[in-house]
Amino acid sequence: MSQITAQPGDRLEQQIAFLMEAERLKTVTRATPIADGSRPENSAEHSWHLALFALVLGDHAETDVDLNRVIRMLILHDIVEVDAGDHPIHGTVDHAAKEAAEIAAADRLYGLLPPVQGAELRAIWDEFEAGKTAEARFARALDRFQPPLLNLAAGGIGWTPFDVTPEKIEARVAPAIRNGAPSLWAYLWPRICGFFARD
Amino acid sequence: MSQITAQPGDRLEQQIAFLMEAERLKTVTRATPIADGSRPENSAEHSWHLALFALVLGDHAETDVDLNRVIRMLILHDIVEVDAGDHPIHGTVDHAAKEAAEIAAADRLYGLLPPVQGAELRAIWDEFEAGKTAEARFARALDRFQPPLLNLAAGGIGWTPFDVTPEKIEARVAPAIRNGAPSLWAYLWPRICGFFARD
Repeated sequence: MSQITAQPGDRLEQQIAFLMEAERLKTVTRATPIADGSRPENSAEHSWHLALFALVLGDHAETDVDLNRVIRMLILHDIVEVDAGDHPIHGTVDHAAKEAAEIAAADRLYGLLPPVQGAELRAIWDEFEAGKTAEARFARALDRFQPPLLNLAAGGIGWTPFDVTPEKIEARVAPAIRNGAPSLWAYLWPRICGFFARD
Repeated sequence: MSQITAQPGDRLEQQIAFLMEAERLKTVTRATPIADGSRPENSAEHSWHLALFALVLGDHAETDVDLNRVIRMLILHDIVEVDAGDHPIHGTVDHAAKEAAEIAAADRLYGLLPPVQGAELRAIWDEFEAGKTAEARFARALDRFQPPLLNLAAGGIGWTPFDVTPEKIEARVAPAIRNGAPSLWAYLWPRICGFFARD
């Protein structure tokens, strides 16, 4: 009877291996500052903040959404950055290389989990990346809406290195916000214009 | 016709006021280090990590739970620390003063939201604090399970200032973990003993 079977303990060890690899998201820094301007935001606390945005701003979604799925999506959406790093929205990026690196990261990281669970969580991330469902569109809108709020609070210090103008911000963030949560763009745009008019 | 009515924009402004106050959780540091030992964990990234724990470890809950509610609970559970600060589990604390400070913080912070939404989210936090429902018991178990994992990964540097022993850790974290997720305590305890035996 040499049959090899997975033990319950194996499953938990796989799950904890994933949780401790994902933990490194706390060390991935973003171009956006935290609101007090004291340091860059990291991708772990960013993910928490976005999950809270979803919990609070659900009534601003462009159409009815399953908020629980949006929240799961936002908890997971940046975990690939543990391997692939963050790519600032106002920087220049090789999109094909970024996509390949993120897919390899997803293969490795979600592959640490028990297979059925890994596939289930990977599917949520794939859905976010594809941006087609109502849930993914809302999640992506929030992911574009939050960084300008932090930059406005912090005096624009995350924008300075990129020589940003209101029009450049609009080009990079407005399509996704309008697509998933139009009322949030209506809130944000006059505040961005007012900030730059002040200079 | 001088009737004063709330505008949709007022609602959004209240919601954003809450989100930007809660944002300060990124500046609340904990006694636990992040896993690479480079710095203390903050309460925002801790909340993200716990929400991920819930998403992954649901099958270890002591009884069936509504995981979506557990996840919401963990996103919200530390927001009162924006006003009340973090209280290290191995430190000494005036429990009555801590509770009073956290209730005042909850009154102020959830009071920033539109009233019905504020009451709804406050009820989730109250449920977590009370620790009676299956969801709150599981959430509280995860909140006790994650810090020792980080300390084990980081060589115990978060334990050093508190002169911690395996028995002290057991006294502080085992009851909540056993109550909400007994298999996680079975995983953790031999690892804690092994760590201290190594010295």
